Amino acid sequence: MSDLTHEALALDAADGLRAKRAEFVLDDDTVYLDGNSLGALPRSVAGRLSDVVEREWGRLRIRSWTESGWWTAPERVGDRIARLVGAAPGQVVAGDSTSVNVFKAVVAAVRLAGEGRDEILVDAATFPTDGYIAASAARLTGCRVRAVDAADTAAAAGPRTAVALVNHVDYRTGRLHDLPGTTAAVHAAGARVVWDLCHSAGALPVALDANGVDFAVGCTYKYLNGGPGSPAYLYVRRDLQAGFDSPLPGWNSHADPFGMSAAYEPADGAARGRVGTPDILSLLALEAALDVWDGVDITAVRAKSLALTDFFLRCVAAYVPEGRAEPVTPLAHAERGSQVSLRCATGAEEVMAELVRRGVVGDFRRPDVLRFGFTPLYTGFADAERAARVLGEVLGA
Amino acid sequence: MSDLTHEALALDAADGLRAKRAEFVLDDDTVYLDGNSLGALPRSVAGRLSDVVEREWGRLRIRSWTESGWWTAPERVGDRIARLVGAAPGQVVAGDSTSVNVFKAVVAAVRLAGEGRDEILVDAATFPTDGYIAASAARLTGCRVRAVDAADTAAAAGPRTAVALVNHVDYRTGRLHDLPGTTAAVHAAGARVVWDLCHSAGALPVALDANGVDFAVGCTYKYLNGGPGSPAYLYVRRDLQAGFDSPLPGWNSHADPFGMSAAYEPADGAARGRVGTPDILSLLALEAALDVWDGVDITAVRAKSLALTDFFLRCVAAYVPEGRAEPVTPLAHAERGSQVSLRCATGAEEVMAELVRRGVVGDFRRPDVLRFGFTPLYTGFADAERAARVLGEVLGA
Repeated sequence: MSDLTHEALALDAADGLRAKRAEFVLDDDTVYLDGNSLGALPRSVAGRLSDVVEREWGRLRIRSWTESGWWTAPERVGDRIARLVGAAPGQVVAGDSTSVNVFKAVVAAVRLAGEGRDEILVDAATFPTDGYIAASAARLTGCRVRAVDAADTAAAAGPRTAVALVNHVDYRTGRLHDLPGTTAAVHAAGARVVWDLCHSAGALPVALDANGVDFAVGCTYKYLNGGPGSPAYLYVRRDLQAGFDSPLPGWNSHADPFGMSAAYEPADGAARGRVGTPDILSLLALEAALDVWDGVDITAVRAKSLALTDFFLRCVAAYVPEGRAEPVTPLAHAERGSQVSLRCATGAEEVMAELVRRGVVGDFRRPDVLRFGFTPLYTGFADAERAARVLGEVLGA
Repeated sequence: MSDLTHEALALDAADGLRAKRAEFVLDDDTVYLDGNSLGALPRSVAGRLSDVVEREWGRLRIRSWTESGWWTAPERVGDRIARLVGAAPGQVVAGDSTSVNVFKAVVAAVRLAGEGRDEILVDAATFPTDGYIAASAARLTGCRVRAVDAADTAAAAGPRTAVALVNHVDYRTGRLHDLPGTTAAVHAAGARVVWDLCHSAGALPVALDANGVDFAVGCTYKYLNGGPGSPAYLYVRRDLQAGFDSPLPGWNSHADPFGMSAAYEPADGAARGRVGTPDILSLLALEAALDVWDGVDITAVRAKSLALTDFFLRCVAAYVPEGRAEPVTPLAHAERGSQVSLRCATGAEEVMAELVRRGVVGDFRRPDVLRFGFTPLYTGFADAERAARVLGEVLGA
């Protein structure tokens, strides 16, 4: 047994979150480091979803909209998410996709902007959908999009800026951007900020309220383990809700949805971010999945995440031949999310395929990036060690 | 036993669709006439969804995006729906809510309109969300909305009209509008038409292709039994797809979604109507639910639907005291969807509550409408007779 193997066992033995792993469906043959793309299945989901299908839908049918709490699920699930992103209740609503929520937030932010503000700043390295949707929002509202490095957003915001759309963690590099500093700088420039939390929520503290963030969006199928394509969410800061003017004013966001009035009158609160009928099966699967967070302190998650990625980087340095896989993810803790991306100049796609064949599941992002996501609720230090060791074997062969 | 009871038994015995009822979870104590709001649970769903959760998500995890066909589910499920609305494959995509799909279709239609066309015609009695979303689309594209009676849409379309948004069946009255005639007239005026099929798909033949319809949207949780809030769908006629310019160009509609390009280049075909990551649990539950349509001829469904609503109207006339509940739904077959709405001037809400207590589940729509939906795959003539009889008891008391 190597020193790193011993160290991994000791670290796992001392891990305060270790018991959480048993709450997920995992097999010991696979090191699953793709929870930053699709979180593993929490054990609480299957039974709950069966009950939703067989009893709530099958037996109660239409009565479940009220008796089983379906109608209020978007706000209820939103409040469960809120705790994990540092938001007080009543500001997060679950539903639709991240893309659709980006559209709502960006258009609403533009509508709040003062005279002469017609610029939407977009993170130049953004996950593409944010950029596409921002461009559509710009086209429909008479704005223009300016792409800037996320780290330069604070400096770029100016008198023409209506809103900045920024990723908290870069999906490709795993770089964590400065949410407090960027938010403060964008505000100082008189503009609004929309944070995309897809790659940070559930992996590290977000502190939306404490930083006065205006709007945020995120998905729930990565670190929140909600299931494939599970509903996304939208945060609208409480004092902005009364002025939140959605470009998708569906009947679910009406003040009196069953009044069936031809005149639109928006609901108060987080419900204003709703659109159409909520996708109940996926939403209630997500709600069950969120049970794994009961009693979990997100600062402990962050501490373990950094310990895991630190340890993985050390193992990579020890096992992988020099020059074959270089970290792209920043080494500074303040700049690191919960993944490690390695640039593999030669044959990256095939390297990942071979890793998967050998039971180490990460993913590949073009042109040359190997991504390894560390999900502190169920990834252990022995997983990190094994992943680096197998990578070394593949790249040393 | 009354004559109508005898007749119901004879009609059920002769019903060619009668065996379909066994494919749904239903209990004999309840007459469920709210399938026009939430369809009953098909027996095929629970087992399939368990497999999706426990094996595809739980065991295969990220691999299921390719190995379990998750990625292509929106088009695959779209093709299953296509057959039921008279569309050849490759023109329907499942996903998002009806409201979001109305937004895509109306904005895209406006963008296809010729110079000087800045008017969006909207069915004045529309289900409210269509009107709210059309107003938002108008505001974002510099158009104005004009509300007209759906039956007058053909006459109202003129040289300023960009698009008409019409409900195939009115949700409140159950009135079936003239899809072939209205489509032809709107086209003759040089405009496009978007049909909302929420209350017709699965209840009667729609014939989108045969009538040259431009765009259509619909939900899948009513007559298609997809489950609460199950994904909606969007039809874009094949020859319009290349010009379909979506206001929600999410990464799932990109020609090369995993290229992660900052430049948006739309996919060909129905996939162009996609937005964000599809909601897999709900989508695959819907796919399983659609199995009940295998081998079903929609013209037989329509024939039974009309026979059921004819019979129900006769039973109401026989059992309900004169003047207590008057049909709002047209008596002419060509103008009737698959529901019967009765105007109940006195205490309608309480009347429906009492019906539900007595095991007859319809619903109430303000201010005075009792709705009874007839879903030919699982509603029988004895159900219709019992519903009318219990209504007569409640109103005669």
